[in-house]
Amino acid sequence: MDLTEHFISSEMIAQGNLLTVKRDCVRLPNGNISHREYVVHPGAVVVIPLLSNGSVVLERQFRYPLQQVFIELPAGKIDPDEDVLVTGQRELLEETGYAAQEWIKLGIQHPCIGYSNEVIHVFLAKNLTAGSHQRDEDELLEVFDLKMEDCLSMIRRGEITDSKTIAALFMAEQFLQQHDR
Amino acid sequence: MDLTEHFISSEMIAQGNLLTVKRDCVRLPNGNISHREYVVHPGAVVVIPLLSNGSVVLERQFRYPLQQVFIELPAGKIDPDEDVLVTGQRELLEETGYAAQEWIKLGIQHPCIGYSNEVIHVFLAKNLTAGSHQRDEDELLEVFDLKMEDCLSMIRRGEITDSKTIAALFMAEQFLQQHDR
Repeated sequence: MDLTEHFISSEMIAQGNLLTVKRDCVRLPNGNISHREYVVHPGAVVVIPLLSNGSVVLERQFRYPLQQVFIELPAGKIDPDEDVLVTGQRELLEETGYAAQEWIKLGIQHPCIGYSNEVIHVFLAKNLTAGSHQRDEDELLEVFDLKMEDCLSMIRRGEITDSKTIAALFMAEQFLQQHDR
Repeated sequence: MDLTEHFISSEMIAQGNLLTVKRDCVRLPNGNISHREYVVHPGAVVVIPLLSNGSVVLERQFRYPLQQVFIELPAGKIDPDEDVLVTGQRELLEETGYAAQEWIKLGIQHPCIGYSNEVIHVFLAKNLTAGSHQRDEDELLEVFDLKMEDCLSMIRRGEITDSKTIAALFMAEQFLQQHDR
């Protein structure tokens, strides 16, 4: 069965400083006309920074849309024309101060397929060296580290609920199981 | 460290048929003023429907924002004042035709903490009975089932990239490991 929806026309319904939202008119596979609204996103990178003792570097960050502090992996948006590896290296350094000698691409994930075109590239970062973070004064977050098995327990207990972090930790855990850490 | 950002004022920057987007003016913990833009979402439910042979019921669905077919678990938005369990039962029946006798809440996940207030409630559904789906004529998707270990392989191979599906399968796998299936 061909499930493809075909573009007819597009309009911008919001152009914020952060968010761009479009509404497209589309032709469904059955011939009917419908509309699709979605956020236009540049893509992002999430990093699983793995210390030599097997711990993962995490962040605590207040996320305004949900009015709560989340435990999450370092991540950030891709700058225009930026290579995704460079994004990962830049965000890890800026947010945590860590640099990594070994970068392993684990794959991609799509956080919000219903209403955003965001893709998140997932990297495992190893052989870490600690340094000074380069957060700007308005970027407030706490950095800490946690053993992988404790990360998994926190997912089970509902203390880590950020989907990109759960999915990335899962991908890392699967990779490490297959490559005997 | 108090990471809380405090509300000052709010404006609607988009009110589509599907998406509502707000821009709030906020006071950061350091006293600076900033803006936060985010999608206002009613919340959703994702279901891991587990057949008696250990297979999981999945869907193939075209997702317009990313212009591709995704493999994903049954899921849908919470209707106004609807109990999340009812949402799960309704969406599973509508999309796949299955009804389940046993519903186990595994927790919640947040798919898009940077720019959406969406929360997804995660349910494991067991003791399934097959019936007729109730999709409307514009809701085009394919239903199939797959062994849990094959789901995990597809995540490893990058054939399942939907974050909510990866996170939900992980939560189900962890639950089943602890409750000897």
